Amino acid sequence: MLKTADHLYLQVADNIEQLIEKEVMKTGEKLPSVRVLSKQHGISLTTAFQAYYHLEGKGLIESRPKSGYYISRNMRRMAPIPGTCRPVKKASDVTVSDMVMEVFHHMSNESILKFSVATPPTSVMPAAKMAKAVIHAMRELPANGIGYEPLQGNELLRRQIARMSLSWGTAVTADDIITTSGCMDALTLCLSATTQPGDTIALESPSYYGALQLAESLGLKVLEVPTHPIYGVDLDYLDKAIPKHKIKACLFVTNFNNPLGSCMPDKNKQALVKMVEKYDIALIEDDIYGDLYFGRERPATCKSFDKTGHVLLCNSFSKSLAPGYRVGWTIPGKYKEKVLLMKQNHSIACASLPHAAVGHFLEIGRYEFHLRNLRKMLHTQCLLYSQAISEYFPESTCISRPQGGCVLWIELDPQINTFELFQQALKNRISFCPGRIFSLQNRYNNCLRISYGTPWSKQVDDALKTLGKLVRKML
Amino acid sequence: MLKTADHLYLQVADNIEQLIEKEVMKTGEKLPSVRVLSKQHGISLTTAFQAYYHLEGKGLIESRPKSGYYISRNMRRMAPIPGTCRPVKKASDVTVSDMVMEVFHHMSNESILKFSVATPPTSVMPAAKMAKAVIHAMRELPANGIGYEPLQGNELLRRQIARMSLSWGTAVTADDIITTSGCMDALTLCLSATTQPGDTIALESPSYYGALQLAESLGLKVLEVPTHPIYGVDLDYLDKAIPKHKIKACLFVTNFNNPLGSCMPDKNKQALVKMVEKYDIALIEDDIYGDLYFGRERPATCKSFDKTGHVLLCNSFSKSLAPGYRVGWTIPGKYKEKVLLMKQNHSIACASLPHAAVGHFLEIGRYEFHLRNLRKMLHTQCLLYSQAISEYFPESTCISRPQGGCVLWIELDPQINTFELFQQALKNRISFCPGRIFSLQNRYNNCLRISYGTPWSKQVDDALKTLGKLVRKML
Repeated sequence: MLKTADHLYLQVADNIEQLIEKEVMKTGEKLPSVRVLSKQHGISLTTAFQAYYHLEGKGLIESRPKSGYYISRNMRRMAPIPGTCRPVKKASDVTVSDMVMEVFHHMSNESILKFSVATPPTSVMPAAKMAKAVIHAMRELPANGIGYEPLQGNELLRRQIARMSLSWGTAVTADDIITTSGCMDALTLCLSATTQPGDTIALESPSYYGALQLAESLGLKVLEVPTHPIYGVDLDYLDKAIPKHKIKACLFVTNFNNPLGSCMPDKNKQALVKMVEKYDIALIEDDIYGDLYFGRERPATCKSFDKTGHVLLCNSFSKSLAPGYRVGWTIPGKYKEKVLLMKQNHSIACASLPHAAVGHFLEIGRYEFHLRNLRKMLHTQCLLYSQAISEYFPESTCISRPQGGCVLWIELDPQINTFELFQQALKNRISFCPGRIFSLQNRYNNCLRISYGTPWSKQVDDALKTLGKLVRKML
Repeated sequence: MLKTADHLYLQVADNIEQLIEKEVMKTGEKLPSVRVLSKQHGISLTTAFQAYYHLEGKGLIESRPKSGYYISRNMRRMAPIPGTCRPVKKASDVTVSDMVMEVFHHMSNESILKFSVATPPTSVMPAAKMAKAVIHAMRELPANGIGYEPLQGNELLRRQIARMSLSWGTAVTADDIITTSGCMDALTLCLSATTQPGDTIALESPSYYGALQLAESLGLKVLEVPTHPIYGVDLDYLDKAIPKHKIKACLFVTNFNNPLGSCMPDKNKQALVKMVEKYDIALIEDDIYGDLYFGRERPATCKSFDKTGHVLLCNSFSKSLAPGYRVGWTIPGKYKEKVLLMKQNHSIACASLPHAAVGHFLEIGRYEFHLRNLRKMLHTQCLLYSQAISEYFPESTCISRPQGGCVLWIELDPQINTFELFQQALKNRISFCPGRIFSLQNRYNNCLRISYGTPWSKQVDDALKTLGKLVRKML
């Protein structure tokens, strides 16, 4: 069928490229296996492999571990990545933002398409299996689980988390872990345990609005550290800033940062851990998106390089399993006793039943299976959303390139105010997070965060088209 | 059988008194109904009533609403009530107490008799009915309840709390209520919403150690206000202290205070509300024991006299229904928006399932029935514990007279250090709360708090006897 064996793989690749260009094969779809491809085209396995390598090199397809090759994007223009964020070089008092309340006021309104919520929808979570786990927990716990748990938390759950900890590069025991009512609660307890009101802490910029608001409610000052959309926090900057601003703790989302999507390379994580050891300050590591990676392996955590206990790792099952169960945890290193005291002071205990139920769900090994599907789904959605935004939004738009998690950070023309855009979008029953809420400084007014948690549909596509039109109108 | 009708009732009363004295009839036991008594003794109903009135006047028996007459104490000496507490007249920085951690370190050790826990045991709570309510909630909620609740909390639960609110003298709607993860969480959010780090708040003295520790973790200073063991906080003192110490908020347990057991009379509550209005400061009212009254009626709350929204009423179901469910709530008056923001900052949402389950349990009307039995049980236990302590402890012992709740405050000879006593008791597998943890000042070292939540048994009697012996040995 083909003339020269030398170019065989190129011709096969070219055929596939055309199918992608004409959208016969769409973003996120699976390609035939190498074996099937070789049969279909009457070529050797090696040639089939070469064709896919070639397309992968062009960024058109990508391999996913244990799953095969997928279309990663079509031929349409992809918006560029935003630059490193450069916040003002001073610590600022936090100001409460009514904007956040306005954005989340409509949380339970079912008629609004919520690009604002950085959590996959419950429709992709194992509701029935969790219900079974609750019933199991009621049978197993004394008095059907109406009593208090131990202060440190459900032991089965802590043992299961310890078992999981191998995958993110730490080896801890149940006794190193304290459970919390979700990840925000973990951050609250860890910040309370490592700082005093009036202290300054370092956050990435842009930064999760929840962390900024939490800092305010604890009377803390915040230094916003420049952050690269791929590599994360600027370590040279931080190294000078810690002594200068008397930073008492860093609170960073090291993997698939919210909202930027950055993921610190291992050597940066290692350097960061050395830095906090050098200055003897706490590093609160929010790893809430760490399990939602698109690549071959789960990224490590700073905790995995922590030999001195300066890192307080925080996480929860809210992004992957059951947000409403409020099951989170922390591995607070040398701050364990202080965090325990804060837990006793603020809440006494977590809700026994949901914590025991998650413990049981993990014990019977369902979690990793569920995560595999969730990751594939999010990866595909990430590509579909990115592509649609690149197509519908003006030329000047920049988009982040997250390799995990569930949000995109979008930078628009500087003349666009995304809070005004938000208010117009809301009239069209669409919500997202305006960029302004991700800083204490008057910044990111031309940015927005879009969650790709909602499964792709015509409604999602139309909503992104509408947003694009609204942006163009504002130019 | 009896000579003169005039003294008939006295003779009948005398017979009963002898039976009580000889412990044929024991504390907490029910007496025959008036009708049965009249038949037994061949006397008129009026005479039978007179006999009981007479014994009631002597404090030997007491009537309970809709239930009849009960033996309230035997003839043994009853220890006197402690005096009003007079803390040092200055605001102090809070110091964290390792003592609290030591006391609660043994919380989940089943072999220790825990007079330290101010909660009735789960054995007297409706575990099976709550489990049914959880299953019902999983059926009713979208996605079996794995999703987030609305920020303000489960609506069914809030409607049911609004319905209950009539009984404590307020008339609120579901929209006035914010649910929380237990009462400590409600106090945390309300204190965060009404104060800034560095502010001073007023607490009763002695004061619940949890409130003191919470104040510390929020960077607040505490003024301890003298408190009468029956009538509660000294209002004249408070009226002068508020402007002098620039008090920003009061946090009081107005009904069946922990640890003193005091219950503010209505006119004091009214005066207190006027006072916080006059100074325009917040009153955080912790009513967690309000439903556990021994008398005819539930005591009112300060909230019921609040016309201006200065009162933030806090409560939970942890003392009566299911401590491990972590279901609490607040009616924060004019501070509602601020408390909502704090809830968003600190925890995002409560655990959906347990909150929906309690809502359902309340809806089907089981709560009041359950409370009636719980109150009777606690009342009887209060009398039994008080009596045993009066008997086993030295002459110099004073005991509080709570009319609700589940704790006794005991004042020993000034030379006794109750933290040492605690350590000795622990060797005998008995725990209680040493008085020192109820103040930031070096006070109450000769006091202790004993919870009478654990149902009366020979083991309890023996443990109190052992405590009494240990005290005598320390004299």
